[in-house]
Amino acid sequence: MSAALPFTRPPHALLIEPIVRHALEEDLGRAGDITSELTVAADARSTAQLVARQAGTISGLVAAERAFHFVDPALSFAVHAPDGASVQAGTLLATIEGSSRAILTGERVALNFTGHLSGVATATRSMVDSVDGTNARIVCTRKTTPGLRVLEKYAVRCGGGFNHRFGLDDAVLIKDNHLAAAGGIRPAIERVRAGLGHMARIELEVDTLAQLEEALSLNIDTILLDNMPPDTLRQAVAMAKGRATLEASGNITLATVRAVAETGVDYISSGAITHSAQNLDLGLDF
Amino acid sequence: MSAALPFTRPPHALLIEPIVRHALEEDLGRAGDITSELTVAADARSTAQLVARQAGTISGLVAAERAFHFVDPALSFAVHAPDGASVQAGTLLATIEGSSRAILTGERVALNFTGHLSGVATATRSMVDSVDGTNARIVCTRKTTPGLRVLEKYAVRCGGGFNHRFGLDDAVLIKDNHLAAAGGIRPAIERVRAGLGHMARIELEVDTLAQLEEALSLNIDTILLDNMPPDTLRQAVAMAKGRATLEASGNITLATVRAVAETGVDYISSGAITHSAQNLDLGLDF
Amino acid sequence: MSAALPFTRPPHALLIEPIVRHALEEDLGRAGDITSELTVAADARSTAQLVARQAGTISGLVAAERAFHFVDPALSFAVHAPDGASVQAGTLLATIEGSSRAILTGERVALNFTGHLSGVATATRSMVDSVDGTNARIVCTRKTTPGLRVLEKYAVRCGGGFNHRFGLDDAVLIKDNHLAAAGGIRPAIERVRAGLGHMARIELEVDTLAQLEEALSLNIDTILLDNMPPDTLRQAVAMAKGRATLEASGNITLATVRAVAETGVDYISSGAITHSAQNLDLGLDF
Amino acid sequence: MSAALPFTRPPHALLIEPIVRHALEEDLGRAGDITSELTVAADARSTAQLVARQAGTISGLVAAERAFHFVDPALSFAVHAPDGASVQAGTLLATIEGSSRAILTGERVALNFTGHLSGVATATRSMVDSVDGTNARIVCTRKTTPGLRVLEKYAVRCGGGFNHRFGLDDAVLIKDNHLAAAGGIRPAIERVRAGLGHMARIELEVDTLAQLEEALSLNIDTILLDNMPPDTLRQAVAMAKGRATLEASGNITLATVRAVAETGVDYISSGAITHSAQNLDLGLDF
Amino acid sequence: MSAALPFTRPPHALLIEPIVRHALEEDLGRAGDITSELTVAADARSTAQLVARQAGTISGLVAAERAFHFVDPALSFAVHAPDGASVQAGTLLATIEGSSRAILTGERVALNFTGHLSGVATATRSMVDSVDGTNARIVCTRKTTPGLRVLEKYAVRCGGGFNHRFGLDDAVLIKDNHLAAAGGIRPAIERVRAGLGHMARIELEVDTLAQLEEALSLNIDTILLDNMPPDTLRQAVAMAKGRATLEASGNITLATVRAVAETGVDYISSGAITHSAQNLDLGLDF
Amino acid sequence: MSAALPFTRPPHALLIEPIVRHALEEDLGRAGDITSELTVAADARSTAQLVARQAGTISGLVAAERAFHFVDPALSFAVHAPDGASVQAGTLLATIEGSSRAILTGERVALNFTGHLSGVATATRSMVDSVDGTNARIVCTRKTTPGLRVLEKYAVRCGGGFNHRFGLDDAVLIKDNHLAAAGGIRPAIERVRAGLGHMARIELEVDTLAQLEEALSLNIDTILLDNMPPDTLRQAVAMAKGRATLEASGNITLATVRAVAETGVDYISSGAITHSAQNLDLGLDF
Repeated sequence: MSAALPFTRPPHALLIEPIVRHALEEDLGRAGDITSELTVAADARSTAQLVARQAGTISGLVAAERAFHFVDPALSFAVHAPDGASVQAGTLLATIEGSSRAILTGERVALNFTGHLSGVATATRSMVDSVDGTNARIVCTRKTTPGLRVLEKYAVRCGGGFNHRFGLDDAVLIKDNHLAAAGGIRPAIERVRAGLGHMARIELEVDTLAQLEEALSLNIDTILLDNMPPDTLRQAVAMAKGRATLEASGNITLATVRAVAETGVDYISSGAITHSAQNLDLGLDF
Repeated sequence: MSAALPFTRPPHALLIEPIVRHALEEDLGRAGDITSELTVAADARSTAQLVARQAGTISGLVAAERAFHFVDPALSFAVHAPDGASVQAGTLLATIEGSSRAILTGERVALNFTGHLSGVATATRSMVDSVDGTNARIVCTRKTTPGLRVLEKYAVRCGGGFNHRFGLDDAVLIKDNHLAAAGGIRPAIERVRAGLGHMARIELEVDTLAQLEEALSLNIDTILLDNMPPDTLRQAVAMAKGRATLEASGNITLATVRAVAETGVDYISSGAITHSAQNLDLGLDF
Repeated sequence: MSAALPFTRPPHALLIEPIVRHALEEDLGRAGDITSELTVAADARSTAQLVARQAGTISGLVAAERAFHFVDPALSFAVHAPDGASVQAGTLLATIEGSSRAILTGERVALNFTGHLSGVATATRSMVDSVDGTNARIVCTRKTTPGLRVLEKYAVRCGGGFNHRFGLDDAVLIKDNHLAAAGGIRPAIERVRAGLGHMARIELEVDTLAQLEEALSLNIDTILLDNMPPDTLRQAVAMAKGRATLEASGNITLATVRAVAETGVDYISSGAITHSAQNLDLGLDF
Repeated sequence: MSAALPFTRPPHALLIEPIVRHALEEDLGRAGDITSELTVAADARSTAQLVARQAGTISGLVAAERAFHFVDPALSFAVHAPDGASVQAGTLLATIEGSSRAILTGERVALNFTGHLSGVATATRSMVDSVDGTNARIVCTRKTTPGLRVLEKYAVRCGGGFNHRFGLDDAVLIKDNHLAAAGGIRPAIERVRAGLGHMARIELEVDTLAQLEEALSLNIDTILLDNMPPDTLRQAVAMAKGRATLEASGNITLATVRAVAETGVDYISSGAITHSAQNLDLGLDF
Repeated sequence: MSAALPFTRPPHALLIEPIVRHALEEDLGRAGDITSELTVAADARSTAQLVARQAGTISGLVAAERAFHFVDPALSFAVHAPDGASVQAGTLLATIEGSSRAILTGERVALNFTGHLSGVATATRSMVDSVDGTNARIVCTRKTTPGLRVLEKYAVRCGGGFNHRFGLDDAVLIKDNHLAAAGGIRPAIERVRAGLGHMARIELEVDTLAQLEEALSLNIDTILLDNMPPDTLRQAVAMAKGRATLEASGNITLATVRAVAETGVDYISSGAITHSAQNLDLGLDF
Repeated sequence: MSAALPFTRPPHALLIEPIVRHALEEDLGRAGDITSELTVAADARSTAQLVARQAGTISGLVAAERAFHFVDPALSFAVHAPDGASVQAGTLLATIEGSSRAILTGERVALNFTGHLSGVATATRSMVDSVDGTNARIVCTRKTTPGLRVLEKYAVRCGGGFNHRFGLDDAVLIKDNHLAAAGGIRPAIERVRAGLGHMARIELEVDTLAQLEEALSLNIDTILLDNMPPDTLRQAVAMAKGRATLEASGNITLATVRAVAETGVDYISSGAITHSAQNLDLGLDF
């Protein structure tokens, strides 16, 4: 139970399994791995090493392990550099042992998961490292790859980031269109408070300091500052005086994130860490 | 029926629907879009415009349309720049009209699909444009995002690329590990030919010109040349003299792809166009 | 957009449909409604009236409508007393018109949903009415019938109640066993705050006023007071001085709920309104 | 193989598993048990006791066991008072041992199943005990909670009751609306006999003794006497002289069931034992 | 409502749809109908005629219609010779009109359903015609093709046959192994009667007339006479004197069925009509 | 790795399991195997022998094993004559040991799979044996039983046959209607070549030698000769001179297949081996 906490919580097996099983079905199609079945003897055995070909932060070994297990429950999967670890190129991540056919059949799906999720974790870790020493935390958004939200949220944690909402239903986020429809901040907030119980967090997105002022006057304690330049953000922090948690968002890049963090905001959200992360180059060596 | 053909074939609705439905369920969770339901009147109506905020090639409107339809079958969805179109920043892609709540509820899922798939199409289009004037075709691989293979393969077609195998089962691809297991090219090919009927395409991956020579002598007509520099590729093309379809692969980038194409190979495969494409920035304006 | 808000939010169709479809499959089995198919002519048409045989608060018409629609999309379903309405015995709730066979086939499933959910709504409404004039809101718990959580949460809203967590994942609720495992309130809270972002609400369950005091000193703003008698609750309210939202829980009954509400707590949670509600007697008259 | 038979037949694992798995998914949502994951060490172990806090008849341990197993296959689950047992308050029902986190994660779903199903079993047992010494058997109906029919039918058996139809398809039950549509008892019966083979049981619902007489004259051997007072039931029994199995139904309560049983009917059906049973209070002590 | 009844009851749409959808998914794979999409213009329209190339009894048009509808809801499907009709070679069964692509895409699945099910209906009809003038009814068994039981049972009805059990759960059938396990007919029957309610039909399989005698003495009213030659069957009929419904089974063929029927048994069951029926040759003409 | 290859490749467990599980659910219904549960003691154990009652080629033991495993993971299943073996009547195929109830519950589903699939394998083997000594290979078609394609394709391999396309998507097959829509062979082929990559096999169906000539001139290397008599086939073989793989199709029977094979065609396809195979008679002896 330490600082490593955020990345020691992989999704429960019940949440991962349907996703991995579906990915395998997608790859096996109807006829299965015809190449390996015809060229590799049924009783051939191999040892394969999952290796990072590039430096980065690892995520998705839990999915890879599950994939190999589904292909053949008799395969062993030993982890050397667990999810959350930041590694150099050449680092051995895991060793898989057992039926050669089974390893070859599961290889691509396992790599697709780990390459993609390690990409997300690595992108997150870069952002997190960039704001080191400030109070700001990096959070992800709902801009995730369809079908992979649970795993990408996990990859963000592996990279040292934090999770924003998992969906439309687990917290309220009032944006400009909601305000326009409701007739302003006050009626929007009143309706939400009238309709929801005490367990739903409410965040308001504001575009201006005037809106921020109104929000603070209504005791809204979680506020998203959308697309504000660092100077404005600094003013916002000054205005809030700790009465609200402040989140900055809007095209955050590695180049800009530190300046944003130094304004004193509490959270910085980035869509790019999930929707535009580069695959991390991993390979399976026999 | 024209040159536009490759990108006029969206996946059948029966193939898209489960993926889109699942993405919506992932976002709606158990309680649904609590923000919109509480702040937007049930009978409010809006017109929203899906706009490209960045130049690129579009893909995924078929999924976006389906998403809005699932949220509310009464929403209308008019396409202005269809999947496959290359557009400038600011181009209006589609207009959605109907219940404000429904549009807000479907917005994120629709954008997640179109942003991601247009990213794949745009990356593909860049490669395709780079080899313009050569005979080389750009093809994708099985390095796709788990759960989205059908849609990413479609996005590649939208970008002017071609599809390689859809899975382990619809063609044979014999790689180094298979050769090692089978005891060489000849036994591997013989086993495959002995076990499969006439409808399964067989491709052999070779690392050297010596292997290529052996392959040609065995009348293997589809050969993947793995990680060969342009000079070697040029020699390979000369050796094959049209007796085999040649595919080049191995860390192809925008910087290197033209040189590879100019060697005379028939196909160039890229994993990056699917696994590392940047999201195309699209937005929904009310 | 009025005080009626809580019960104008039925779950999204995408959330209801799988539950209703499954209930119909459960009833149709493999051979379907053999009685109606053999005794009722295929072209016979009927008008049926869904009537309350008992006073109560209605919930579940949205599921009933969906059930009849699944059985036969051509059936019409006109609602007279919508979900959320409190009605007298004999009130006409809805009229169904169309194929006699279809109405008979869907009848039981429709009644099972509406009878059960109206029972939950009615039990909730009784509690809500009992605390009328106080500030206390009635909330439900996770003690719901397996498979029906989304609908039972909705039924609670139909009865004027509010919803607590929808699951283990949308808010933190730290109970005695968690405290024991973490080593006390402070370490438990620190771990949660270290691991979660700003969108997750955290509630702490306390059994004593001493625990409450510690919680307040740690700025925990949502506190569940477990099994405290009214006098203790009153002291708790005095101690909190509005610094935290207070929820009372523990075997709340119609007989005790008003006394609890009068202590000044903000929320009173009841498992009985979902897990032990009596079915409301509804019938379908042809 | 003894009198205990009815309650030694839990549903096959293939029938229980999807229901339990779905209930867990409903509770885990997307992010899982965030409270336990953050406050309880991954390697902490506990022993928990499932205890009856109230006297009653137990049912649903088979589902609870499966729930804990799905959460963590390494948990042990030892049963002390099996499904079907009638116990006093304070009785230890089962002991669960293993990962503390896993036990906490599975606790609520396990209790929701056992509390609900034990409620059904207890309600059934009360009815069964009330008719002790008569020939009447208590049977349930199709008035079950959507999605739980298989388990509630089992709970009825645990309480000493018998099962009526499992759905619309496994037996014929001709009610008043069917008779009206078919044009009377004779045409209805003739159509059913013409259309079905020898393995489908046919029951006719009658409202009057005149209808009973007609039914007997047509050799209908299973008859439901709907809403008849005890005197009329007694006459019906006398008329039937054992030529038909007689079932009494219609708002049977604990107060009235004995009088009905003493009329000599063979079966008494009750919807309340499934649709309005009170949850049995069970708890999990660490 | 006439003698045509048995074949006017197609399975409910909710029961057919998942089977048809799955068959289409099986044929579409991941890439869909690539041939038609590439060679047939998207807006080409055709009229296609489903024709019997062979005389027989039709079944499965309900599935074919659903298949074409799933492929393209805009296709029209007009039935000329409905399920249950016995037709000559060359008979037009249905006309499909609309998108040429869609018709070609759905063609094979539609033919696979109708060819197979019409084969079952035709085989059944031959048996039924063979026993014309006797009292015997032809019934099917549980020897059905995995996944198609609901539809094959329907095909049997289309052929004039009747349905036996739909599964292990909707009636009791006590066979030799059950008797051996229970210790004889009497204990087996007693256990079943002790454990089941009044809605479960009980059939006993007997191999000898001595067993039949014991069965009759126990008032078992449905008896399966297994593998008895006609003479023995005739004796059995004489012994039963109408006190029990008698079913003959055991390698019934077209050559033997009439002799069996003339013994006076009530039902003759055949596995061959479902598990070994020849496909009926149907074709789709454009 | 020998000539036995084709039948040593059962479908991957991930492909078989959903089919087998569904078949069991179909048979268990809601109440399960009520006969065995009531007549057979829970702790009774048996040994059962799966025996061929008829000579033939075996297929489907992999499904039977899975079925018994799903019913009770503790059952043992020892194979004596594996899938692909040709056996005499009376041959012991497998021994199942364990819970008597479980064996009885799984018996019918196991036999339905093995009887059906062995029927397909046996029909295939007859065709294969008939063409012994020629170069022709027997291939199946897409005329398979809905839902069972993967398993029937496997059964064909067990019988010594080869597989044609698994679906509409894994190869192109241009038939007469496609040619009509595209405007002839040349435009059809050009469109397909323009739209597909190098991994999709393209086959053209021709009805006449003139079409064959055109096809050869377009370098189409896989050609289906539809409904040609042996003399015409022989001419076709002569014309092709090995430049194309030739497949003969059209109402191939055991009586005609050898004459077709002797024409020198490479492949002969038969729909009958999958859609009209007789069930192979297998039994389970206790």
